Amino acid sequence: MKKVLIANRGEIAVRIIRACKELGIQTVAVYSEPDRDALHVELADEAYCIGPSPSKDSYLNFSNIISVANLTDCDGIHPGYGFLAENASFAELCEECNIEFIGPTSDAISRMGTKDVARETMRKAGVPIVPGSTGIVGDEEEALEIAKEIGFPVIIKATAGGGGKGIRVARDKNELINGLKMTQKEAAAAFGNPGVYIEKYIEVFRHVEIQILADKFGNTIHLGERDCSIQRRMQKLVEESPSPALTSELRKEMGDAAVKAAEAVNYRGAGTVEFIFDHINQKFYFMEMNTRIQVEHTITEMITGIDLIKQQLKIASGEKLAYKQKDIKMNGWSIECRINAENPSKNFMPSPGTVTMYMPPGGFGVRIDSAMYTGYTIPPFYDSMVAKLIVHADTRQEAVARMKRALDEFIIEGIETTIPFHANLMDHEVFKSGDFDTNFLEKYTIMD
Amino acid sequence: MKKVLIANRGEIAVRIIRACKELGIQTVAVYSEPDRDALHVELADEAYCIGPSPSKDSYLNFSNIISVANLTDCDGIHPGYGFLAENASFAELCEECNIEFIGPTSDAISRMGTKDVARETMRKAGVPIVPGSTGIVGDEEEALEIAKEIGFPVIIKATAGGGGKGIRVARDKNELINGLKMTQKEAAAAFGNPGVYIEKYIEVFRHVEIQILADKFGNTIHLGERDCSIQRRMQKLVEESPSPALTSELRKEMGDAAVKAAEAVNYRGAGTVEFIFDHINQKFYFMEMNTRIQVEHTITEMITGIDLIKQQLKIASGEKLAYKQKDIKMNGWSIECRINAENPSKNFMPSPGTVTMYMPPGGFGVRIDSAMYTGYTIPPFYDSMVAKLIVHADTRQEAVARMKRALDEFIIEGIETTIPFHANLMDHEVFKSGDFDTNFLEKYTIMD
Repeated sequence: MKKVLIANRGEIAVRIIRACKELGIQTVAVYSEPDRDALHVELADEAYCIGPSPSKDSYLNFSNIISVANLTDCDGIHPGYGFLAENASFAELCEECNIEFIGPTSDAISRMGTKDVARETMRKAGVPIVPGSTGIVGDEEEALEIAKEIGFPVIIKATAGGGGKGIRVARDKNELINGLKMTQKEAAAAFGNPGVYIEKYIEVFRHVEIQILADKFGNTIHLGERDCSIQRRMQKLVEESPSPALTSELRKEMGDAAVKAAEAVNYRGAGTVEFIFDHINQKFYFMEMNTRIQVEHTITEMITGIDLIKQQLKIASGEKLAYKQKDIKMNGWSIECRINAENPSKNFMPSPGTVTMYMPPGGFGVRIDSAMYTGYTIPPFYDSMVAKLIVHADTRQEAVARMKRALDEFIIEGIETTIPFHANLMDHEVFKSGDFDTNFLEKYTIMD
Repeated sequence: MKKVLIANRGEIAVRIIRACKELGIQTVAVYSEPDRDALHVELADEAYCIGPSPSKDSYLNFSNIISVANLTDCDGIHPGYGFLAENASFAELCEECNIEFIGPTSDAISRMGTKDVARETMRKAGVPIVPGSTGIVGDEEEALEIAKEIGFPVIIKATAGGGGKGIRVARDKNELINGLKMTQKEAAAAFGNPGVYIEKYIEVFRHVEIQILADKFGNTIHLGERDCSIQRRMQKLVEESPSPALTSELRKEMGDAAVKAAEAVNYRGAGTVEFIFDHINQKFYFMEMNTRIQVEHTITEMITGIDLIKQQLKIASGEKLAYKQKDIKMNGWSIECRINAENPSKNFMPSPGTVTMYMPPGGFGVRIDSAMYTGYTIPPFYDSMVAKLIVHADTRQEAVARMKRALDEFIIEGIETTIPFHANLMDHEVFKSGDFDTNFLEKYTIMD
C-alpha cells in the first residue's frame, strides 16, 4: 500500500495519518467546508474539500470520496470510526472500484450490523448470548412465551438499531405487549425495518470488550480486554485496560469467545467484540461486534505495545499477522479519558467555539490524541469529542494518580470541556476502588 | 516523605514535580527573578524567589535554598541535574540540616567527582579502566615512562576537571612534555588543583552508559544501557536505548561492572556509570560516574517501564528497591532528541526569546518533557535545552520513523531550535544504520 485516503476527520484522521507517515505511506485527507483549518488537513500530504457541513454531503458522500481516491491514485481508504466505517454498501463499493477498504469485508460488516443475525451467528458459533428469542419475534403471543421462559424484565431491541436507539425495557406483560408494538413502529420509522427481538434484561453489568486482530489468511488473535463501564447515556467516557473485574481465567474465556465470534464471520482487520459482563454471577454474554477501529483502541496499544492502526494497514496490504496469541503480553495499566467540548456542570451541553489556549500535559506515561491547537475553532456540526488523554503506568493506582496529574496540567481555554468532570472522577472513592458497573454515573454525582 | 523542595528549573523541575504529584508529595519550587513566569513555578504547590539571574545568587545559593526548605517544612531537596546535583558540600549541608538530599551521600559524590580517585576506586573494584597512570602524575619523567608503557597517543586529564575541560591529547614526546605543563597550569587556574593523570587516548569509541539504582540497604541493580554517541563538542544531542552496538553478553558484562562501580562507593539512589566502548575491539572502560539523575533518564524509563524519579523519591524515603535484577526487562527501542533553543544552521548559536507558538507532537509512543508554552520567554541565562522529545517503538527502525514523524509535527515559533537538525539526522543513512561513533558529527554534515 503506497497511498491511503482517510475518509474521516478529527483526532482519528490525525491518528491514521501518523501511522501512515511512520510506515512511509502517502496520505490524502478529505474535508468538509467548515473543516478547512482542521489539523488533519494540515498534516496530510494532500487534502481535498468534498462538500459542505452536513455529513451526508461530505464525510458520508460515497461518490465524492471515491472520486478523490481515484483522482489521487489511492490504493486504499481508511474509514476511521463513525461515518462510513460500518457501512457495508460503502465497503462493497470500494471492493467494486478495486480500492482496498481498510476494514473487514462488506459481508462481515452486514452480518454483524444486523443484530438478530449477529445473535444467531454467535449462538451457532458457541459464543454465549443473553437468553432470548431466536431471530425476529413474530407476534405478541411469541413474545409472551419467550418472556415466560426467560423471566421479566426483558429488553426489546430493533434488529436494525444500535447505539442505544430502538431499545425498550419491559418489566411485566402489559409493558411487553405495548412495548413490542411501539418499538416495532419506531424501528420501522427510524430504520425502515420493523424487526425486533427479545432478550433477558440484565440490569447490573460491566461493559467489557475484547480487541481482536485477524489477517486475510484466517489467523485471528485477541489483545485482551477494555473495561468501558463509565458511561453516560450509553456513551463511553472513560475506558481502561485491563478490567479491574476480570480474572485471568475469565480473560482467557472471553478472549477465546471473541476469537470465535470473529472467525464466525471470517473477520479480517481490527475489530471489537463487546460483552455484557454480569460480574455478580461471573458470566458474560455477547453484546455486539464493532467491525472497525474504536475510539478506545489506544489503551490496548499502551498495554500491548502494538500499534493497531499500523496493524490495520499491514493486514489490508496482505501481510500475515506477525504475532501469535502467545506473543501478546499485557503490561501495566492504561486509562483513557475522552475530552469532550461539553459543559459537565450544565448537563454536558455542547460547547463548540474557538480554543484560545491549548496546552496539553506531558511527561512519562502520558499520551495525547487530539486534533486541537491554539486558535482552532471547533465546528458545531460534529461529534463533541475533541481530545483523548491516555495514561499508562505499572498499576491501576499509579495510572489513576497519573491521570489526575495530567488532567490538572491540561489547559484548554475558550470552550468548556469534560476535564473537570474527569478530574473529580479520578478522586472518587468508588471509581478508585475499581468496583462499579455501567450505572455508576446514575448512582453518583460527580459534578456538584 | 511529605514535602520536597526542587532546587532546579526548566524541564527537570517540571519532571520532578510531576513525579511528586503522582506520589502525593507536596512540592516547593524555587526560582530566580527571570524565571518568575516559568512552568515549574506554576505547577508547584508553592514557589519562592531565591535571587537574581546569576546562578551563584539563586540556583547555586546554598543558604537561600536551605532557608526556603526550612521555612516550608520540606523533608527533602531534589537537586535535579546540573546546579547543585553533584555538589558534595551542598549534600553535606543537607545532611547536617537533617534535610534528605535526594541523591547519594556527599562521600559518594566526592569520591566519584575527583577523577583520579574514582579511577583508582574502579581499578581496585575490578572495573575496567583505560590503561594509564596510577593516581596523579608526579613529573615529566613519570609521564614519559607511562607513555612508553601504554603507547601514544595519550590523554592528559585534570583530576578536578570534567565536561570536556582540562583535557589535552599528546601524540608524541614533545606534545606530552609541553601538554603536561600546560594542563597543570590551566587546571591550577581553573579548578584550584594542578593534579593531572594520563590515560591511553582511545580515538574511536561509542559513549555507552549504564543506569543504576541502589537503595539504602545495599541492593544495587542496573537498568540497561543508553548509547549517547551523537555528540557535538562533548555535548549529547541524541540518546537511545538499547545501544545498536551491544550484544547481550556485553550488556551483562557492562551492567555487572556498573553495579560493581556503584557498590564500590556505597552508592544509593539513581546514578549512571559512563563507559568508553571501543566497539572495534569490543572492549569497554570506565569513563566516569554521574552521581545524579541524567537528562536522558527518560529513554530508560520508556524501555523498562520504571519511573526513575519516583524511584529516587522512594529510595530517599527509605524504601527497599521493589525490583531485583531479574525483574528488569527491556522492551522495544527508545530515542530522545534534545530540543535546544539554538540555530543549527548558524553553528548552534543560542536563540533565546519569546515562543510565539508552541505545539508539541502527540500520539502513540511519543513523550514530551518540556517547560515551554505558547508565550513563554526563554531567558538567556541558562542551558539552551528547552524540551526533550522521546519516542518508544518496537524496533529501532520504527522508533526512527516515529521520531521523524514527531519532529515534523513539532511547532515552535519565535525562536530557532535544533528540530531541523534532528529531522535531517533521522534521514541520514549512517545514523539509520546504527553504525557510528562519537566522531559522527565531525565526519558528516547534517545541516547544509
